[in-house]
Amino acid sequence: MKKLCEFTKEELLEFYNDTQSRYDEFKARGLTIDMSRGKPGPEQLDVAQAEFAKAFELTDYRSKTGFDCRNYGMLDGIAESKELFASLLGVEPKNIVIGGNASLELMFSFISQCCSHGIAGCTPWSKLDKVKFIAVVPGYDRHFAIAEYFGIKMVNVPISETGPDMDMVEELIKDESVKGMFCVPKYSNPDGFTYSAETVERLAKMQPAAKDFRVIWDNAYIIHDLYDTSDELVNIFDAAKKYGTEDNFVEFCSTSKITFPGSGVSALAASDNNIKEILSRLTVQIISYDKMNQLRHSCVFPDVDSLKAVMKKHADVLRPKFDAVLEVLEAELGGLGIASWHKPNGGYFISLNVDTGSAKYAGQLCKEAGLTLTGVGATFPYKNDPDDRNIRIAPSYPSVEDLKASAELLCIAVKLAAAKALL
Amino acid sequence: MKKLCEFTKEELLEFYNDTQSRYDEFKARGLTIDMSRGKPGPEQLDVAQAEFAKAFELTDYRSKTGFDCRNYGMLDGIAESKELFASLLGVEPKNIVIGGNASLELMFSFISQCCSHGIAGCTPWSKLDKVKFIAVVPGYDRHFAIAEYFGIKMVNVPISETGPDMDMVEELIKDESVKGMFCVPKYSNPDGFTYSAETVERLAKMQPAAKDFRVIWDNAYIIHDLYDTSDELVNIFDAAKKYGTEDNFVEFCSTSKITFPGSGVSALAASDNNIKEILSRLTVQIISYDKMNQLRHSCVFPDVDSLKAVMKKHADVLRPKFDAVLEVLEAELGGLGIASWHKPNGGYFISLNVDTGSAKYAGQLCKEAGLTLTGVGATFPYKNDPDDRNIRIAPSYPSVEDLKASAELLCIAVKLAAAKALL
Repeated sequence: MKKLCEFTKEELLEFYNDTQSRYDEFKARGLTIDMSRGKPGPEQLDVAQAEFAKAFELTDYRSKTGFDCRNYGMLDGIAESKELFASLLGVEPKNIVIGGNASLELMFSFISQCCSHGIAGCTPWSKLDKVKFIAVVPGYDRHFAIAEYFGIKMVNVPISETGPDMDMVEELIKDESVKGMFCVPKYSNPDGFTYSAETVERLAKMQPAAKDFRVIWDNAYIIHDLYDTSDELVNIFDAAKKYGTEDNFVEFCSTSKITFPGSGVSALAASDNNIKEILSRLTVQIISYDKMNQLRHSCVFPDVDSLKAVMKKHADVLRPKFDAVLEVLEAELGGLGIASWHKPNGGYFISLNVDTGSAKYAGQLCKEAGLTLTGVGATFPYKNDPDDRNIRIAPSYPSVEDLKASAELLCIAVKLAAAKALL
Repeated sequence: MKKLCEFTKEELLEFYNDTQSRYDEFKARGLTIDMSRGKPGPEQLDVAQAEFAKAFELTDYRSKTGFDCRNYGMLDGIAESKELFASLLGVEPKNIVIGGNASLELMFSFISQCCSHGIAGCTPWSKLDKVKFIAVVPGYDRHFAIAEYFGIKMVNVPISETGPDMDMVEELIKDESVKGMFCVPKYSNPDGFTYSAETVERLAKMQPAAKDFRVIWDNAYIIHDLYDTSDELVNIFDAAKKYGTEDNFVEFCSTSKITFPGSGVSALAASDNNIKEILSRLTVQIISYDKMNQLRHSCVFPDVDSLKAVMKKHADVLRPKFDAVLEVLEAELGGLGIASWHKPNGGYFISLNVDTGSAKYAGQLCKEAGLTLTGVGATFPYKNDPDDRNIRIAPSYPSVEDLKASAELLCIAVKLAAAKALL
């Protein structure tokens, strides 16, 4: 197939007009489809709810240590939950704190603590003139929103199939005002890249100028595979141990996309030093998180294998959705040289990179025809994609039928934007 | 009966020796009783769990607005929960935000926001040299811990049967560095006092020098009556409306002591302005709280009357416990002039005020005989009771038998401490 940039003026005009007709037809259909967020679909929630039937029949709410989970106490979580997450993350239970329903809240509160009180005996970030974070881009908008809220200046570092550009990272951490970094190391949001063993090794090896440099290691998609083969991610704490840099990393995850979004259980893993500091704050912030929910989760999921088993059921729902979008992308955009994307092995997104300067316009065309995408630009700090190239596709929530229509409309919009720029 | 201070030297010595013998007998029994925290007893948790049987059978998790509570969204809570708490607190649903399992966390995060970002367009408290809070004493140690954590200097204002000393409060708020105040206005922790209508009116009328003065109105025991007659507390927002001071108050409550401690639902009520600022932070902090738990709560408790009905069951469990302690206090200490206490109509505590300078010693004697009380001094900021007088008794958790023994031991310790001081 000929690339769009190789089209003659005449061919391009015909291409534009044909595409415009298809767009007008779509617009006339009056679609209203929301593909903006990585929300599990209702079928997935039914899967989770079915698993929980026996948990809701629980009559004995004692933890295996005998503790009554209905009452106050157990700030860092019940033994079962700590063991489950320890096993999932490959750390010891003593290095786990179980949170509430949201790992985002655990991240927010940790960064808030670094700002108000400092970490590792260093000056609180709020008392410093300049605090910077490395933002791996494109990335997760809610990470960026936390940094922006606390006045932390973000510096973009691009991601590729192997993870963040480590040459840039290693240069940036020589600056003492660079205090941390957001990473989604497996099935990165939105590209679905998994950091290579070499990238993890180089991250573990880092000796940042700032003693209080902290990587927010958001392992949101740790077992969120779409196919039978899973991407392999090296355990960050195993790697860090070799270099004595365990304090540099705080890992987060949750069951939001395993059980219920908003009613799951979150957890963090950290070094002894970081756990001690986090608990010294938590003991003021809350008496204990929801241990009845922790126990229900442990009743349904006694071990990591049981978690992986339910993830296969989620994958069975999600795979046709991802496949539907990828097929349309390939059929509509393949070979035209106006867009590129990665076929992810897991996670919740497909990241579409279009011609520089045309993403916003394509997003606007979609919106006018009834399709809501993640706000174009939102995958970058300050909602500013400097190249105006990235569009995040969230295939999890709509039906396969709606996804096919949405993907087609999106491709039409991308074609129109590209052709318009060339005309 | 003769007061202890009127005893002759001989009588006092005999009194001391008799009491010492009783103490030694207690010590020999090797008790281990924990009366330190306001934890509901297991019987109360059984009451709550029985109520929840039908909630755990829920199969349709849609809110009445049709929203699927199993998924992300509804940052400020589902309609049912907002209406329930609005009705409980006497405000409009738009002035309610539903939180997670802990009202303490809502308070912590609100104060954290005032420190990091400021409120009402004022300078963030963390940027000011001096920030002070009025601490109504004796009071709740976890309030004081939040202020201490954020470096807010606390100024003690004593409480009496009508509430805080309002003359002192009205004087203190002329100081612009006084930014707020902790209040437990009904069945205050630990005394069980309920603020009088006049006190609430004077609080509502306040025009503090600081535009960002905020009262943490912790209505923790709003329907937590022990007897058929409830203390009446004037609705703070009704009172404030008359003076246009609604922004001065943020009200908090939860179902921790109605349903499950740690697995209940919390809420805050605030003015339109404060709600807007709180939501602007929450939208960064979390995607949504646990709406499945919100829905379960609304399934069991569709209205305030149903909440009040279960509180009667809790009262049936708690009343004999409070009565047991009060009977022993009266029998052992009545008329001796060495201790005073208030018989509360609700709440979770009995506050015992002993001779100046003898509370710590009495607490130590109890501890040595196996009875753990709330750390003596903990009812004051910085764990420092300047008069060393106050002992908080938490009768909710132990059995009636254990409470009788505990109260007797406590009285013996108080007597020993008083007699020792006089000898």
